[in-house]
Amino acid sequence: MQADILIENGWILTMDPENTVFEKGSLAISGESILAVGKAEDLSHIEAREKVDARGGVILPGFVNVHTHASMTLFRGLADDLPLMRWLEDHIFPAEARLTPELVRLGAELACLEMMASGTTTFCDMYLFENAVAEAADTAGMRAVVGEVLYDFPSPCYGPIEKGFLHVEEMIGRWKYHPRITIALKPHSPYLCAPELLSRAFDMAETHNLPFVIHLAETAAETETIKKTYGKSPVAHLADLGLLSQRTLAAHCVKMDEADIELFAMKGSSVAHNPQSNMKLASGIAPVPAFLKAGITVGIGTDGAASNNDLNMLSEMRSAALIHKVTSADPTLMDAGTILRMATIDGAKCLGLDEITGSLEEGKQADIILMDTDKPHMTPLYNPFSQVVYAAGRNDIRDVFVAGKGIYRNRCHTTLDADAICRRVREAVLTFR
Amino acid sequence: MQADILIENGWILTMDPENTVFEKGSLAISGESILAVGKAEDLSHIEAREKVDARGGVILPGFVNVHTHASMTLFRGLADDLPLMRWLEDHIFPAEARLTPELVRLGAELACLEMMASGTTTFCDMYLFENAVAEAADTAGMRAVVGEVLYDFPSPCYGPIEKGFLHVEEMIGRWKYHPRITIALKPHSPYLCAPELLSRAFDMAETHNLPFVIHLAETAAETETIKKTYGKSPVAHLADLGLLSQRTLAAHCVKMDEADIELFAMKGSSVAHNPQSNMKLASGIAPVPAFLKAGITVGIGTDGAASNNDLNMLSEMRSAALIHKVTSADPTLMDAGTILRMATIDGAKCLGLDEITGSLEEGKQADIILMDTDKPHMTPLYNPFSQVVYAAGRNDIRDVFVAGKGIYRNRCHTTLDADAICRRVREAVLTFR
Ligand SMILES: [Zn+2]
Ligand SMILES: [Zn+2]
Repeated sequence: MQADILIENGWILTMDPENTVFEKGSLAISGESILAVGKAEDLSHIEAREKVDARGGVILPGFVNVHTHASMTLFRGLADDLPLMRWLEDHIFPAEARLTPELVRLGAELACLEMMASGTTTFCDMYLFENAVAEAADTAGMRAVVGEVLYDFPSPCYGPIEKGFLHVEEMIGRWKYHPRITIALKPHSPYLCAPELLSRAFDMAETHNLPFVIHLAETAAETETIKKTYGKSPVAHLADLGLLSQRTLAAHCVKMDEADIELFAMKGSSVAHNPQSNMKLASGIAPVPAFLKAGITVGIGTDGAASNNDLNMLSEMRSAALIHKVTSADPTLMDAGTILRMATIDGAKCLGLDEITGSLEEGKQADIILMDTDKPHMTPLYNPFSQVVYAAGRNDIRDVFVAGKGIYRNRCHTTLDADAICRRVREAVLTFR
Repeated sequence: MQADILIENGWILTMDPENTVFEKGSLAISGESILAVGKAEDLSHIEAREKVDARGGVILPGFVNVHTHASMTLFRGLADDLPLMRWLEDHIFPAEARLTPELVRLGAELACLEMMASGTTTFCDMYLFENAVAEAADTAGMRAVVGEVLYDFPSPCYGPIEKGFLHVEEMIGRWKYHPRITIALKPHSPYLCAPELLSRAFDMAETHNLPFVIHLAETAAETETIKKTYGKSPVAHLADLGLLSQRTLAAHCVKMDEADIELFAMKGSSVAHNPQSNMKLASGIAPVPAFLKAGITVGIGTDGAASNNDLNMLSEMRSAALIHKVTSADPTLMDAGTILRMATIDGAKCLGLDEITGSLEEGKQADIILMDTDKPHMTPLYNPFSQVVYAAGRNDIRDVFVAGKGIYRNRCHTTLDADAICRRVREAVLTFR
């Protein structure tokens, strides 16, 4: 049998349904797909054009960042440690008012550089001028679910909402046959979107069979506003509009009570958990252990770099693992294996991509990362799940493949010019200070 | 004027009392000390044997890790996500029973490698066979406050407690004139140490003018035990024994009420805050904002690698910044500047070393780190404090100096052989599995 690439000599964490691990495993890539994965001896008949020695490191599916605003890397550290409204109104909104498609593209390229170098192969993005984000992801060679943000007021991108729906239709047409880019319907939130907007966006998602992504129950203030306006919780509001379904992915879900959780589980909707953003903005801590207990699929997201301030899934996983143990006073919750599933296959499920990516199984797309384990902070290695979640850092990522293509090899970007992009960003943001 | 090393072209975060920052600063080192620090033009008269270009990066005092058990790197990832007692009794204690001075030394060398590579220049360590830790720190070129752990039961190191005090006396004599190693008195905790042991250890600390370091109020179980045994809180118990003083550094302090905090502040004792360990073991969240409001000096520690699982002060700072915002529902708390002071000058204060290290000021020891800011995740750079706390990772650390000596240069260790130590650790721990 002939493969393009054969990765050898590593711990393979397949993240398949049985959570199979091969201690000295091999993985063969043919074209865009995984040809075979297993014990070294079971793949010994495979010839390959290129062999990659994992040097005893860890081979796992690329991380799926289920919620971000990539271009907000432009505002990384612009303003921190402020009350939410001052942060938004005095810093973020004025900076966003100056955005152009070119700047959004530049910020998204910066984000792609950062995400690739920290092992993310798929991300789900909501922002304005989102075609520019799709273009950046395309050039970067990443997989992305992108959607123009929709809200009641006019957008710098498309103008009035009526044109917004036309714009999204055009986006859907433009990216329909792209192998790595999926368009999603992305109304901002129940507090910035009237019920008509939400329903129309959901209908469009149904018509085109696309994900429906929304911010939901992020803060106490939101919950209060929705209760005052509609007489019910944000979750019940969406449910009554018929917008909770398996295609629904809600970001944050910090303020959800038992009834909300039950509704969510019943409808098969999923959650994008963003622990660092929720902590930094002091929004609260989503009841993730209760979500999991109810059978809700939960992925992990970084949110934008303005409220994080990086797009590092390793650091986000660690926060997710730690925060729920302490708030529940139970150190056995959110163990490393659970966390790693959330960051890979469960994230893919949130985006409707679990048949394509999120685990290392024959026939799936070759979205794969290699981590070195030779550094002092990764030594000794008793348990690769623990090591990845509790000890690894972004620089342990050595190689990243998406759809069989090495987009980050030996810690170098192969698709984007990192130095040039960083230089352009430094110049571009001089006016945001 | 003649210097040995001149570091140029970086943001200098001095962490001095005025929190002075030089955007394009220079820093001159002569021998072990800082000769001058300031704007580039104000140091232009200084000639130097070696010039170091910070390339627009950040120059700051090395981090002070105020609480760790360095040699527990040997147990990194040995057992995770378990109930506390099962973790200790089934995994950690049996592994510790096999320790020898040689293994403790090896684990401490591994820890030093990791700490240096993540910007720590000073650490405060409590363990058994602590002479071996001091030797490792000495060889590594790091600054350390070390103390043999004392408790009521016999120690594998010194046998019965009577011999323990003799052992500590010997340690004090042995390291007395070492420029970078300080011995401290380190009774384990009020629940493992009888009042007589505690008092005698404190007296010895007074006699020799050394720090007195103890675990305190870490868990609800501890607080209950002490209340049952002594009829008061762990803090009140120590206070009544006369053991709260400016030389007292208490690790954890998770379970402290208002009265405890008031006592602590009044006595001038300090706190070693270990947010990740407290979260991972589900111990609770120390009321750090209340400590700071009361004027208590708080440093940041990683605790041992068995409950973290790394010794990375950058990641620990981030956790400290995030956790208190969300639990207090106030995003303005624990801002980046406060966090960075805790990790540097306040940490030095906790250890009684603030006249020697913790800030970049003329005449102080040259304990300095250089961070690069050229990577995508560090771009753009609006505010270096935010960038260090919320975005930087260990691999952004490029150079580390302790007492004027480059112990980590261009991301390479100069004092210890990293590969050899990692190899020896991998072999040594085979029996712990
Ligand atoms: Zn968001
Ligand atoms: Zn400890």
